[in-house]
Amino acid sequence: MVNSTKSMQYRKIPKPALSRLCRIYNLMEELEVKGDTSISSREIGKRLGVGSHNIRKDISYIGETGISGSGYEINRLKTHIEAALGLSKERNACIIGLGGLGIVIMNYQKPLFPHFKIIAGFDSNINVLETIEISIPVYPTYEITEIITEKKIELAVITEPDRNIEKIMERLYKGGIKGIINFTPMTMSSDYESVYIRNIDIVTEFRYLSALFSMQDQKL
Amino acid sequence: MVNSTKSMQYRKIPKPALSRLCRIYNLMEELEVKGDTSISSREIGKRLGVGSHNIRKDISYIGETGISGSGYEINRLKTHIEAALGLSKERNACIIGLGGLGIVIMNYQKPLFPHFKIIAGFDSNINVLETIEISIPVYPTYEITEIITEKKIELAVITEPDRNIEKIMERLYKGGIKGIINFTPMTMSSDYESVYIRNIDIVTEFRYLSALFSMQDQKL
Repeated sequence: MVNSTKSMQYRKIPKPALSRLCRIYNLMEELEVKGDTSISSREIGKRLGVGSHNIRKDISYIGETGISGSGYEINRLKTHIEAALGLSKERNACIIGLGGLGIVIMNYQKPLFPHFKIIAGFDSNINVLETIEISIPVYPTYEITEIITEKKIELAVITEPDRNIEKIMERLYKGGIKGIINFTPMTMSSDYESVYIRNIDIVTEFRYLSALFSMQDQKL
Repeated sequence: MVNSTKSMQYRKIPKPALSRLCRIYNLMEELEVKGDTSISSREIGKRLGVGSHNIRKDISYIGETGISGSGYEINRLKTHIEAALGLSKERNACIIGLGGLGIVIMNYQKPLFPHFKIIAGFDSNINVLETIEISIPVYPTYEITEIITEKKIELAVITEPDRNIEKIMERLYKGGIKGIINFTPMTMSSDYESVYIRNIDIVTEFRYLSALFSMQDQKL
């Protein structure tokens, strides 16, 4: 019964609130390590750069109201967000592109993806597949649809630009992928509303900084 | 003379255009590898999700006009952006937080930060400093101001949450840091207009995906 209540509340959470709840969760984690025990909505809002009214509304979506006068109990709020958002459920992921960044992300998956387990790797280059030494099974990219269906993989992490990216995307869609995290500078957008794509373009961030510094240098 | 002309044009580039020019540069790099030689502003716009008029305007900031009829020559545009934005200038960077992610970023700096050279590492934990084996000099965080001034470090990459983050930021400002890339879930904002801070919160991205998947699961 508790579960069904949670589901009902949960279904109504708008995406921006969902995203803020994840950030609130991170903050609670950080404060818990620091030894803090309670926090006001005003303080949460200040730390996240959001109004306290929004914070209270976000938290009310998961049925939490806070203790009058002293705000929210940190451990309780963290546990509640985790349960309501299903954050502790383990899900399967795969890496596409087994070059340097792919290996780095795989070796570093625990802190980066606390809820995803990388269980397969793909690369278009047969030489890479034959010579790579990693602890998970690797496959050519033309097997994407089959493997992600079979292994119930929900997330694909793309680590390298690929000239056949359109085909790779098609295979991911066919296999029923739910989300894609793209670490390459190629901008991707989803053809399907149900597939969430997030572009994290680190190289462009650094290039932009480089350009900004050049601009500042010229002003001197 | 050519340089001074470039400086003049360069100084007027608004930040959104500067950011798009970096993305255009990445695209030219990608297309050059693919063997393409020319591209229209319409196609660039389509790939970047921006109108072609904006693309032409962005490119005109660096004094490039394109060849009538056939758009832009890829190699020429790439070279021109690189020169105008000072993208090939090598700059000094440091890592703050020498845990797993710090080491990963250091080992992977070439593709991630093509224009930055990591020349120092900092950690608040003395045990980490005493036991770590890496190829760059490492220092306690209380030496930040001194070291970044002395070594002319322009960029700091923060890789781990630190309970003394306010002090670290203060030391970075005092040392004259120009930019900060924050890979931790702590949201940082700059106290000084001249210091650019970019929060790249990978953990929250993955948590958000996890929550989104849970929401989809419940709809089934």
